[in-house]
Amino acid sequence: MIIINEVKVMKAHVRMIKSKKQTIALVPTMGYLHEGHVSLMHKARNLADHLIISIFVNPIQFGVGEDLDKYPRDLEHDKKLAAQARVECIFHPTPEQMYPAGYATSVDVEGITSGLCGASRPTHFRGVATVCAKLFNIIEPDVAVFGEKDFQQLAVIRRMVEDLNLNVQIVPHHTVREEDGLAMSSRNAYLSPEERTHATVLYRSLQHARELYKAGQKDARTVREAAVALIRSAPGAVIDYVEIVDPVTLQPLGTIVPGAVMALAVKFGRTRLIDNMVIAG
Amino acid sequence: MIIINEVKVMKAHVRMIKSKKQTIALVPTMGYLHEGHVSLMHKARNLADHLIISIFVNPIQFGVGEDLDKYPRDLEHDKKLAAQARVECIFHPTPEQMYPAGYATSVDVEGITSGLCGASRPTHFRGVATVCAKLFNIIEPDVAVFGEKDFQQLAVIRRMVEDLNLNVQIVPHHTVREEDGLAMSSRNAYLSPEERTHATVLYRSLQHARELYKAGQKDARTVREAAVALIRSAPGAVIDYVEIVDPVTLQPLGTIVPGAVMALAVKFGRTRLIDNMVIAG
Repeated sequence: MIIINEVKVMKAHVRMIKSKKQTIALVPTMGYLHEGHVSLMHKARNLADHLIISIFVNPIQFGVGEDLDKYPRDLEHDKKLAAQARVECIFHPTPEQMYPAGYATSVDVEGITSGLCGASRPTHFRGVATVCAKLFNIIEPDVAVFGEKDFQQLAVIRRMVEDLNLNVQIVPHHTVREEDGLAMSSRNAYLSPEERTHATVLYRSLQHARELYKAGQKDARTVREAAVALIRSAPGAVIDYVEIVDPVTLQPLGTIVPGAVMALAVKFGRTRLIDNMVIAG
Repeated sequence: MIIINEVKVMKAHVRMIKSKKQTIALVPTMGYLHEGHVSLMHKARNLADHLIISIFVNPIQFGVGEDLDKYPRDLEHDKKLAAQARVECIFHPTPEQMYPAGYATSVDVEGITSGLCGASRPTHFRGVATVCAKLFNIIEPDVAVFGEKDFQQLAVIRRMVEDLNLNVQIVPHHTVREEDGLAMSSRNAYLSPEERTHATVLYRSLQHARELYKAGQKDARTVREAAVALIRSAPGAVIDYVEIVDPVTLQPLGTIVPGAVMALAVKFGRTRLIDNMVIAG
């Protein structure tokens, strides 16, 4: 497994791989890898000849006052997990490599970025779309695997790939959860033991919503309010949003239709967690 | 020479070319080809195995009230000129192919797009950057040739290619002029015979600025005002801007330094013409 820090070197490496007519699968990450990432890497491993992951804590997707500086990092542990998952190459650039002096370009996806996480993080998805466009151009993957935990991010990337005619296939992968249901996230490391316990309410609220729908409740407001009440029962939970939305347009639904997704963002202390589930499967 | 109207077909054609390890040169155009485009095609012809031009009047680079609807078109004449220039393929998509229902993505370059043409056409360069990003992803050219007449556009495309790590080399080509110095442009077709005569003042004003610099005048304001006075002496000329700028940052200069460019946009009747020249060579 090789580690590449420079865009120029990464591009040369990609040329070498392509010259052998090998295909490339990419798993973009911000590092601090956990079992969720491992699952993405296993998925990607089977989709192409060559598996590359990127590890880059992308500054432009963090807003003012967000956790850029304290975002957890552990490259040595990441390397071990990547090697175990038979990753051939880690692309680990510096911010200066990705955004050198004079940098001025951004990629924006409108509409689906305005609600949910976009409402409280107005520049977040611009940062995500821009860095993914760059990574796709640098690494030229045939496929890129994204976790469904970042539900809105996945929708934004798919929209961008289709709109900009990018030559990469986006493959979604299911959310990996702890035994008690908490979605795996690097940010879980921020939680105190008490917060960690209370945070299981998120998964339970999603399950509860799904069960209400299964039992015949099709009114989105009723289901949403039940989930909100359940979350509020957990000490310290501060809701950013709980929404039931169309899976493609991400527009809030009045009536729950097949494919509908409940998506939520909730803070425990200073830690903001997101999760989602198809509640009408 | 083949004409392709669909993105999917164009991508398949590109795959076929690439599978033969042939290189591709692209000349993006809005059609209504003239000798300036022919010169770009000749240049591009020598830079790759396969020469593709795009003909697409890109709606998103026109502002409200601009000349999208009346922009001149003559595909039959364009085909003749392209065939003579040994173009192998014309990509001629419909607006619906490029911007289907649900389209939501744009590429923005900040800073260098705010002045000059960007001041009076605030969404123009977003449209240009977005369509070029799309064309580069669809056609995957090794090189793309752009005319220096569209000076700010060239700077925007270069910035975008560098920032988004696009795998295309941007090659500039000198402005082709009529015998009396008027820069070739599809929009020259709009000019009345009188306007056409008066429009030669643009080239003369650029030459005059260059001569003043050669004679020792380094003060940008003095040189600019001399050019403005000359242009105003032409009946019907209405100045949008006349600026002396740094060729990379496009920032206005106080003192003229080597490489400095005078750029201008002037209306004759309803026709807006642009031109530029390195006045400190």
